Amino acid sequence: MPRQTDSIEKLTEIGKQVISSIQNAEYPSIVLPDRSTRNIVFDSVSGQFVLGNSKTKRDSSNVKHVKSFMQLMWVASFAKQLVKNGRTSSLRDIYYSSEAFGVDFKNQAESDRIIADLECLTGISREDFGVFPEEHSSIYGEVVMKYTVSGYEGREVDLTISPDGFPIGSALITAEPVSTKAKMILAIESGGMFSRLIETRCWERFGAVLIHLGGQAPRSTRRLMRKLREHLDLPVFVFTDGDPWGMHIAQVIIAGSANAAHIDRLAIPDAKWIGVTAGDIAKYSLPTEDMNNKDLRRLEELAQDSRYLTSDWSAQIDAFKNLRKKAEQQAFSRHGMDFVVEQYLPDKLNFAI
Amino acid sequence: MPRQTDSIEKLTEIGKQVISSIQNAEYPSIVLPDRSTRNIVFDSVSGQFVLGNSKTKRDSSNVKHVKSFMQLMWVASFAKQLVKNGRTSSLRDIYYSSEAFGVDFKNQAESDRIIADLECLTGISREDFGVFPEEHSSIYGEVVMKYTVSGYEGREVDLTISPDGFPIGSALITAEPVSTKAKMILAIESGGMFSRLIETRCWERFGAVLIHLGGQAPRSTRRLMRKLREHLDLPVFVFTDGDPWGMHIAQVIIAGSANAAHIDRLAIPDAKWIGVTAGDIAKYSLPTEDMNNKDLRRLEELAQDSRYLTSDWSAQIDAFKNLRKKAEQQAFSRHGMDFVVEQYLPDKLNFAI
Repeated sequence: MPRQTDSIEKLTEIGKQVISSIQNAEYPSIVLPDRSTRNIVFDSVSGQFVLGNSKTKRDSSNVKHVKSFMQLMWVASFAKQLVKNGRTSSLRDIYYSSEAFGVDFKNQAESDRIIADLECLTGISREDFGVFPEEHSSIYGEVVMKYTVSGYEGREVDLTISPDGFPIGSALITAEPVSTKAKMILAIESGGMFSRLIETRCWERFGAVLIHLGGQAPRSTRRLMRKLREHLDLPVFVFTDGDPWGMHIAQVIIAGSANAAHIDRLAIPDAKWIGVTAGDIAKYSLPTEDMNNKDLRRLEELAQDSRYLTSDWSAQIDAFKNLRKKAEQQAFSRHGMDFVVEQYLPDKLNFAI
Repeated sequence: MPRQTDSIEKLTEIGKQVISSIQNAEYPSIVLPDRSTRNIVFDSVSGQFVLGNSKTKRDSSNVKHVKSFMQLMWVASFAKQLVKNGRTSSLRDIYYSSEAFGVDFKNQAESDRIIADLECLTGISREDFGVFPEEHSSIYGEVVMKYTVSGYEGREVDLTISPDGFPIGSALITAEPVSTKAKMILAIESGGMFSRLIETRCWERFGAVLIHLGGQAPRSTRRLMRKLREHLDLPVFVFTDGDPWGMHIAQVIIAGSANAAHIDRLAIPDAKWIGVTAGDIAKYSLPTEDMNNKDLRRLEELAQDSRYLTSDWSAQIDAFKNLRKKAEQQAFSRHGMDFVVEQYLPDKLNFAI
């Protein structure tokens, strides 16, 4: 597996450099891209967040750096064990495993940060080291994937096999897309809507691979969407609640997030948000709730965000600011269970394509 | 399908009674078991919560009852449409769908309550009407299930097909167990532990069907466990974090919960909690955190709870009270990634069997 070889090589290289410093009687040090906010820039050409050129040095001769230097070395060696043995670990488990080695993390936030440092240093994302968060999204649709995980190597699975959806866990993320009959990916915020679109065979009608995001998409789900977009040439549409939070779920899929700016191949710049927009709320007479202060503050924040500076996005934000109301995806049910399938999605997808 | 016929019959019966009252120029009324706390009793013989004999009457001639009477009628008619058309709905969707019919619920909590009333009135649980919450647990193991849902009727699925686990959604819950090679069900609180037990082939080694609970088990997951327990004769073991919350996850699986006291066939009285107990924390030298006030208050509450009055459970509570510390399942990783598989689980499962 090239992924595995590549990871092992990069990790071994780190170790070699450190050993060579020690053999030369020098304090080992590591230079890695600076992940602080002042080095995260929005690249308007590619339409996504990237790291700038600033570097940071972690020097074991500096007493302030010794601890994080050692933590980074341990995480690198743990990652190498995972890759070598074809094993996976949750972020939480890494935090606990450190105790077995006498490595001290204050809390999981600290070990998560060091894992991000390792990603930065190697240019390899933690999923390739076998490190995953606990949460996951689901997928359903006419896609055949081929597993690479131990015990399932080469086995193919059709993602319509479970009518309840298929979990996007570590095994599926490392699987390879083989073929599809679908024409698009439709990512959906809520589980209720996802189930309805399966049950009403929307996946067949619209030729859509359905993805249940369940709020902000986990990074691994964004990777899988991007992989399907690239390997199977499927355009991506995102259907969320009609509020600043829903809008931002779509935006992170499109343009990435600041805290994953060091990870390549996550953003999907040509993904499209199909609503629920403020305009849809009016057009389809959806039942609404008033925006609360938190919602209104969030709109103001988004208006300042470099990802929302285009005229299209500004207009969407302004429309919500004027409306001061929000609506959930499920609100379409007021027009009958199947209104969203019969009316709304055909309207929006025709328009988007 | 007998499930479907039974549901339709009971729902039709309700309608007939109401119509017959009206035809006799009487105000229609409904008598249903009282679900208030004063009528929820712990049946120490069966070891679970049940409703007492108190009844409550919802009378359309009483202006205070008119609204909830009408809401109940609407929910019953909506449920009948779902069953007739082989469709499902989320609890949230029912709340929104009501608006299409001019039925007014203050919020989802109110529509959820009326759905529980319908369960009480018919003795049929909402899952059989096709009504599900959004969240779900996962399952993995050598069990073959046969689907009954539309589009998948008669199709069999082996629950080892997805190395990431299989979601326990509406389709799987209504499927029938066909066969198994397993000898037990092992329900697990955290997703990280669930993944580890799949990856290390614990399911094979212990002959276990693994279930990821993700906190308090959704009702549908408890139903599925009970179904597997009954149809395939698999004993149930529950493995949780070592704290009052983990202990109570196990207890609800064993003895049921007060707010589902009106639903039959949920509790699994012979299910066993295998830890993490306060004793395990000491025995295996697990890294711990101090209990906070919320944890300590929760212990006090449990000590008063009728489900914890046996000497075994009291001893467990006392041990935590003395220890004043808690540990997560993942804490075993301090002894190495596979300690839980090589040492802890064999210890505990041998002891439990």
